[in-house]
Parts: sequence; structure tokens; C-alpha cells
Amino acid sequence: MKTSWANGNELWADVIAETLHRKGVEYAITCPGSRSSPLTFAFAGHESIEAIPILDERSAGFFALGLAKRSGRPVALVCTSGSAVANFFPAVVEASESGVPLVLLTADRPPELRDCQAGQTIDQLKFFGGYVRKATELAVPESSREMLRYLRQTVAHVAEVATAPDRGPVHLNVPFRDPLIPVAQDGFVSPFTNEELSSFFDHLGISDGIPFVQAQLPESLAAIEKGVVVVGPASPDNEDSWCENVASLANSLGWPVLADALNPLRSNGTGISSLVCGYDFILRNRSLSEELTPEHVLVIGSLPTSKVLRTWIGENDVPMTILSDRTVNVDATHSRSVRVVADLEFGGVLAPKSQAADVYAKRWIELDRTVQSELDTRFSSEEALIEAKLSWGLSKWLPRECSLCVSNSMPPRDMEFYFGPRIEPVSVFSSRGANGIDGILSTAMGVAHEGEATFLLTGDLALLHDTNGALNAKQFKGSLTILLVNNAGGGIFEMLPVSQFESVFEKHYGTDQQVDFGAWSKTYGLDYELIQSWGQLETELGKEIAGVRVLEVRTDRKRDAVLRKQLFKDVSSRLG
Amino acid sequence: MKTSWANGNELWADVIAETLHRKGVEYAITCPGSRSSPLTFAFAGHESIEAIPILDERSAGFFALGLAKRSGRPVALVCTSGSAVANFFPAVVEASESGVPLVLLTADRPPELRDCQAGQTIDQLKFFGGYVRKATELAVPESSREMLRYLRQTVAHVAEVATAPDRGPVHLNVPFRDPLIPVAQDGFVSPFTNEELSSFFDHLGISDGIPFVQAQLPESLAAIEKGVVVVGPASPDNEDSWCENVASLANSLGWPVLADALNPLRSNGTGISSLVCGYDFILRNRSLSEELTPEHVLVIGSLPTSKVLRTWIGENDVPMTILSDRTVNVDATHSRSVRVVADLEFGGVLAPKSQAADVYAKRWIELDRTVQSELDTRFSSEEALIEAKLSWGLSKWLPRECSLCVSNSMPPRDMEFYFGPRIEPVSVFSSRGANGIDGILSTAMGVAHEGEATFLLTGDLALLHDTNGALNAKQFKGSLTILLVNNAGGGIFEMLPVSQFESVFEKHYGTDQQVDFGAWSKTYGLDYELIQSWGQLETELGKEIAGVRVLEVRTDRKRDAVLRKQLFKDVSSRLG
Repeated sequence: MKTSWANGNELWADVIAETLHRKGVEYAITCPGSRSSPLTFAFAGHESIEAIPILDERSAGFFALGLAKRSGRPVALVCTSGSAVANFFPAVVEASESGVPLVLLTADRPPELRDCQAGQTIDQLKFFGGYVRKATELAVPESSREMLRYLRQTVAHVAEVATAPDRGPVHLNVPFRDPLIPVAQDGFVSPFTNEELSSFFDHLGISDGIPFVQAQLPESLAAIEKGVVVVGPASPDNEDSWCENVASLANSLGWPVLADALNPLRSNGTGISSLVCGYDFILRNRSLSEELTPEHVLVIGSLPTSKVLRTWIGENDVPMTILSDRTVNVDATHSRSVRVVADLEFGGVLAPKSQAADVYAKRWIELDRTVQSELDTRFSSEEALIEAKLSWGLSKWLPRECSLCVSNSMPPRDMEFYFGPRIEPVSVFSSRGANGIDGILSTAMGVAHEGEATFLLTGDLALLHDTNGALNAKQFKGSLTILLVNNAGGGIFEMLPVSQFESVFEKHYGTDQQVDFGAWSKTYGLDYELIQSWGQLETELGKEIAGVRVLEVRTDRKRDAVLRKQLFKDVSSRLG
Repeated sequence: MKTSWANGNELWADVIAETLHRKGVEYAITCPGSRSSPLTFAFAGHESIEAIPILDERSAGFFALGLAKRSGRPVALVCTSGSAVANFFPAVVEASESGVPLVLLTADRPPELRDCQAGQTIDQLKFFGGYVRKATELAVPESSREMLRYLRQTVAHVAEVATAPDRGPVHLNVPFRDPLIPVAQDGFVSPFTNEELSSFFDHLGISDGIPFVQAQLPESLAAIEKGVVVVGPASPDNEDSWCENVASLANSLGWPVLADALNPLRSNGTGISSLVCGYDFILRNRSLSEELTPEHVLVIGSLPTSKVLRTWIGENDVPMTILSDRTVNVDATHSRSVRVVADLEFGGVLAPKSQAADVYAKRWIELDRTVQSELDTRFSSEEALIEAKLSWGLSKWLPRECSLCVSNSMPPRDMEFYFGPRIEPVSVFSSRGANGIDGILSTAMGVAHEGEATFLLTGDLALLHDTNGALNAKQFKGSLTILLVNNAGGGIFEMLPVSQFESVFEKHYGTDQQVDFGAWSKTYGLDYELIQSWGQLETELGKEIAGVRVLEVRTDRKRDAVLRKQLFKDVSSRLG
């Protein structure tokens, strides 16, 4: 941190930046604007924080979300006063719903210039309503020791709230009077000696890890013959220990683990005795779903996306134990559920040992093998570019030690259906808080920025929704491959009954945007390839690249919807 | 309206659509989604409402804003549940701040499927906080006569709140249970006979016009020798009568009218005896600003953007009368202001006749002539593509009976400085509620859709901020010419002292996005021309076109910032 300042605003903003740095902030996204200048200067000048300017605050919000998801650290997000703030909202919603720490710093005019059309000024107080864990308006900067102590402690506190125990976005509204830039201000004197300053932040550190008391599951579970562990979307910071803890818990119980593709278990679950990926196919077979009706369900974090699985649980009103360190209610099945506070990342959960469940687990594994072998047989000889094969292929073709971001709408479903087990770990990221198709590209770029090689599986509409994410490509440091499934519109609606209503369907649901993605890529300086065969795709996935590239796979959503349904039927009948 | 329905949701949504139609809604923007299907079907099937699907809810919001600004009628805006709602927020902020009627219809899951991770479900209640005039959650649909009466009356009431007297956005949260599409539902029976139905909406009509008691200004104003009328941004629905009423008021007082370029007076103010466009130049001359210090200021609607003008008023603590029909506080100068409720569109304002002000008005006019003739001389021989000349040129070259949309940041300033008086009316639209650079393209497309030929003056950053507006070009009906001032970044910051800080400036303020606008236009199927001379531009402006085209004018923001400052100095010294 500097030891001299031109004015009080500069000092004030430096204290904010330094405090956030001590609390673990490594990145600050600074959206261009005048009122936020003190913050922009402070982050740009901080030697341990990377300040990244992004034009569109909506994309900036999602880029920060991606960075925070990957790093597990809070990311600072700076904007000027006015409607800029509102553009953060979509990312704030997702961060809140999925528990991702963001520190929103919205610059503002001071009170005397609000609510009088002073220009670019709106009511920013409590702007994000219930979507932030805390919202505070800072005082107008003053350069007294007392006020800077207040500032330091308040900013540190807010950053702590963002990170634990119920992580999420926090909002600091930050008013500034002129001068906004570091020009000398009459009468300004720093209240600190250099010595005082060097120790001013000494007590601040990162509050990492949550000191959970280890949860213990009741002995009675050992007697259960038909118990399943279900695991929904999750991107734990400490992936290996999380996977090990899940394995140890499930193995102790002897229960099969039904793992969504949106957590790392399918690729990092070799420690699990009974890992089941094909549960959606299995439960579509009515006699199997009855045969397999569980006595107890143990949910880790959240439920998988599968509607079939959720219905199976819900219609039997199964007793359910939900292990979660968050306060969100995750039980859309409204079963006999009980929440147990636990975080599988830290310390695991003790469960009784059981042999009772052995037969049941073996049955699941046997069925899952049939599903996987059926899929392997079908897809390995399939030459047509069908969407289903793409998710299956990713489980075979992705390089080791990479990240995979999965968009919303159809991709999470296809991943859940077709992404098979593999032994080379993939870190999977998704946006299943609000399940929106907004901000998908920027989120993936945030995950990939200065991270490992990253792949984004997305449809055309979701990619276009966040076209402005691509504006950030020129300063992006990393490797991102966009796997663009271009089915010319809203493929998910083809799977819904609304697709029968032709008069309304194409215009209001199909909504083909007729974009030439070659020209789109060129506009933003991205590399672009049109994929014409599976062999070509496999080759491309094996290449090490820098920057952002687009691999476009053109598919036919009507055909693919029919094929998916056919496959459900075929596999389900094979199982019977 | 139909007379038979497959289920209660279909009937419910039809009642909403028909009620809104009776209250003046002509357009519904329907963003693709499943939960909102009953509304989508209702609007798509309504014979008097045009339903327009737009992918990105943020652009959809601004498109609706533009349509509502131009038509003066509330526009319906439909989205599905989840983060889609948050993407409406930027447009809601601008609609609220600038008083534009929007009816937000956000579909939602019913209460039993909220707050349990049922998928794409967030807390939508009161989502827009203080930015809507009213927020209501509708009941879950039921097909009894009583519930449909409740629905009709509630929707009608909310639409009325949107339109008068303090216009703005309103929010209806609309829960639906399955089935979302018009498939037969067991037990559903319409509660209406055809006869009842035909008269069910009979009493509803558009509440047009606000029955103001005509405001009367005090006789004492007749004695004032130095009084000015200042008029800020305004896009009145009834432009001619608004202009006539302003003229009659000002002429009666004998006061000069200092008119921002963001209202129609500079092109439709021939009835005004003393119209002044060059006030910003005049007041930059210190001795003139002192000489001209007013005794009273009459503000119509809001203050112009000019910081020089605002400072001139503020530093003299001038008594001010603000004529406005809105509740916003528009006096950022914190002068001795008094608000008088009046709307110049309806009935005018009675003012005393005065001769006292004659000398003062003549002085203004004489100075303004010098400014205009100086600008004409400079610009008519200027061959370089400088930004200042573009706004001047628009006042000469725009065709008659067109609309001009002005983006934020530098364009409103350039317009205020250089757009001279003309006799062929131009309808001017701006977004000076929150002054954001978001949604600019979509707003202009909304203004132009099925309207008169429209021109949009915008910088590159603002255009890129709403790139997704261009996705709507293929279904757009109208003529929109985008005058793209491409100065490779944030030109307004070059005008600010921050431009001296080179280490931070280019990366965090300049923020050149390095976009090839030829490729950008091609991506969305827009016509594109690079303007190389003023003659070429004049020719292009004279062409009648359909659809959306881009005329790119490449400028040099550093040079142009210097030129603007030089011009201020030169003109100001000529006046002295």
C-alpha cells in the first residue's frame, strides 16, 4: 500500500482495497465510470489484486461469478453510479442462489446529490433486496483515524459475511464527493505515520475453512436395506477431499451413489464402491422404479436435476436426510426431509457401517452397467452429429485436469443422461442456482481466467444471451473452448409438449436467431471451427490452445428430440 | 377474445391480455420460456396486440421502453420465472426515472414450488423495489366468475397506475400451476355464457389525458426583467400542442427559452419569439454569465444537461418555478425552487403578459445568433470527420418528420452544444432518467418499430453494451439508421481530468473494445457503410431505407476532445 495520498478519497479507496486484499480478494472487476474512479485507481494500483475492466456490467458480474466459483475467494465488483448497478443484478441472483462470494462496490453520489436529477444517480440503497447477505452504505470519505478504522472494520466484516458460513454476494454502496481522481486537495493530511500504517491491517487474514463439528448420522441407518445417496450439482473448492468424503460416507453405509454429472464424482469417484450414473434411464422403467423404491435418501448438497429421480423420491414420500451447510431449502419433493448441517469439504460425516444394503447396491450397479454399455454401443458407432452423443463423447475425449462449464437449458440434462464415468478428473461448473441462460459465456471465462484449460458446453441461445462476454476475450488469460451446440433455437422446448402447437411454437419458443457464428467469432477475434465429424471434434479437444475458440456443432433439434425419446424407450426396455 | 378454452390457465391469461388491450396495450414483448406459456399464448393469439418474442430480457425491456416512449401507451413485457426477471431491471430503472409506462408480467411457479430449488425459481415478490409504481402478486388461476372479476379489476387498476398521473413501470407477478399450455384439463368449465363474456370488459377504456386544472403563474412575474425559461429533455406524446403551449407561455412572459436539444423545441419551436440554443457557449463567457444572471427561472419538466447552465443557476440561488406533472425532484441546483403541478401537453399554463423582459430577451437572441453563425462558419467548411460537426450536421441534414434517438455519455452533450435550430420537426428521444449507456440500441429499435424513420446517434461503447438489441433486427418493422460515432472507447472521459492519468486511463477508461463493426453488422444481417466524408453522410441520411443499417463514422477521441475545448474558448471569446 502507498504511504502518501493526494486526497482523502484516494486514501479511503486504498483502505478498502487493502482490507479486501487481506480478506482474500485477488481480482477486482472494474466497470468503466467516473464516480467509481477512486476505487478503480485503488484496485488498478494494488500490487496483489488484478484489476480487470469490463464494459458491460452484466457480463462483468458473471465473469466475477466464474472467478469466484473457481477460486473459492470473494471477487470485488466495481461499478459507477446509476443503472450500471442494475446490470449486476442477474449475476447477483445466481451468486445468491448458488452461494458464491462477491463483494459489490457500487460507487454513488453523496446524499446531497441524490434524488434531484444530478445525473446518473438512482436510489442504490438496498438495491439487491434479499439477494445479498448484507447491504451497507459507507460513510462519505473522511480522513480521520477514527473514520478509517470504521472503514477497515466494516469492509472486513462485510467480506467475512460473503465467505462464511452461508457464502454469497454482499453489497457496499460507496459515496464519493469530488475530487474523484488523485489530485491534490487543500487541507488533506494523512492521519497516519508510516509506522502506524504498516501495522494497520496486521490483524486481518483470510477466514478459510469452516470449523464444522463433524456431523454424525444415526446408527439406525445401518439397518436400512434400500438406501441411496443422491448428489446434485456441486463445485467444491477442495474437490479431492470432497470426493473422498462422499466416498467414505457412502461406502460406510454401503449405499449406491446416484451422482449428477454437474459435480466431480463421475470423473473423480473411483473411491466410491457403487457409483451410478444412469439412474435417469433406470427410473424411467416403471417396474424398476418400483422395485428400487428406497427406504431412505441421503442428499449431499442438493438434488440432481432429473425430473424422473425427483418424482420417484417425491411420490414415495421417502424419509430424506439432507447434508448441507447452506440455508437454502433444496427439497422440491417435499418429502419427509431433515436437514443436517455438514460440509463434505471439511471433515466429512460419520456414518454407521452397514452390510444390509449390499444386495440393493449390487442391483443398481448391474443396471447401471447395462445402461452404460448400451450407450457406449449406440454412440461409438454413431456418425451423425447428435446432441446426445456430444455429452457422452465429452466423458471420453476431454483431456485430464481440465474444467468443464455446463450451460443451462438442455446441456445439464444431456450431461446427466449421457456423460459417463471416467477416471481422469474434470472440475465441473454449472449455474444451477437460478438455472438461467444469462451470463453463461462470462461465467465460463471467469472460471478459465488464469485457471486450467476449460470447456464450455452451451446451446446457441445461451451463448448469444451473453455475447458481450466475448468483448473480454482480448484481455482474457487462459484457455477456453466453447462447444457450441447450434440447433438454431430453443432445443429444450422441443422436449416439451408445447412443441405440438405449431402456430405459436417456432416464433415464440423455437426463436431461431439466425446468427452466423463464423462472423460472430470474427467480430470478437475468436478462433472458430465448424465441426463436421466426431473424429475432428476429438482431435480438436486434444489440442492445447490459448485464448477463446469456438467449435460449432450444428445439430437438428427436432431430430435430436425424437432421438432422445427413442433412446429413453430403448434403454428402458433393455433394462426390463 | 375466444369463447372457449381448454383449461383455466388459458382463460386466466386471456382475461389478462384482453384487459390490458382495453387499457391501451398494443404490444407485448414475450421472452421465451416455459412458465410464461399461458401469457405467451394469450398475447400471441390476441388479434389487436402484436406479440414480439425477444431472446434477451434486458434488450426486451429496453425495446418495450422505446415502444412506450414513442406511443405513450403502456407496453406489456412478459418473461418466465427465474433470473429472466433480473434482466428486466435496467430497463425498469430507466422507465421509472423517466416516467415511461411498462406492465411487467413475470410468470412464476405457484407458492408450493418456491424456495425449494424446484428449478428456475427465485423470489420475485417486490423484486423491483421502489422502481415500480405498484407491485402485485396475482392469485393462482381459478376459473370462477368471482376470481375472474378480481383478475380483470386488478389488472385494469395496475394498468391505470402505470399511465397516470405519475407514469411508470408496474409489476404483476403471475403464478401458474400446470398445465402451462392449452391442453384439456379435467373438470374445467368456463363460468361464462358467451353473452356474459361479450360484455365482461365493456366498462374498460383508455384513461387518456390528465384532467389538470390549468396552472396559473403569479402576476408578479410580469414585473421581472430578467427571467428565463429553461427546458430539459422531454419527449411529449402530443408534441405539437406541447411546443405551442411552451411558446405561448414564454411569449406571454416575454422570456427567452433556453432549450436543450433533447426536446422538440429546437426543431418545432418556430412559435417561440426568443429561442436560444447556444446558452452553454454564452454562459462559458464569465462576464456574460454575470451580466445575464436571471431574477427568476421557469423550468419546464426538467433542467437541461449543461453543467455550465446548472452551475449558473445554482451559484446565484435563483428563485425557480418548476412546472412538472411528475413527483421526481429535478432541482440538482438546490435553488429557491417551487414545484407547480402542470403538464404542458394538456391545456398549458397561464402566465401574465410582460414587456419588462424585452431587453433581456433581445440580448440573449443577439448572442445566440453570434454563436450559431460562428458554428455555421466553422463547420460548413470543416472536412475532417469531427464529432462536433456531426451533431451540427444532423440539424441540417435530417429529413423532415423523422425521429432522432440520442444515446448517453457524449452524444447528449454534443447535441446540446451543436444541434442548431431548424424548422422541420424532429421527434427527439433520449434516456435521461438514469443516463445509462445500457439498452440504447433496443430503445431506438422500439422507438422506430412501426414508427417514422428513426436515427440513433451513439458512441461505440453504448452500441456494444446492447449488441443483443441487434438480434431483433430480423423481425423489426421500420427504418433505423445507427449513426455510430466510433472513437474506439470512452470519448467522454477524454473531456474529464482523469485523462491526464495515463497509467490508468487507456485500460480502465479508454477501454477500446477493438470491434470490427463491419463484421458486427454482418453477424446480425445489418446493412453497413463506412462514412468517409460529410457529403457521403448527407447523401446517406437522405435515403429512404427499411430495416436497420449502420453508418460508421470513425473519429479520434483525443483530437476531438481538444477541438471541443478550443471551440468553447473561441466562441466564448468571440462573444466577448
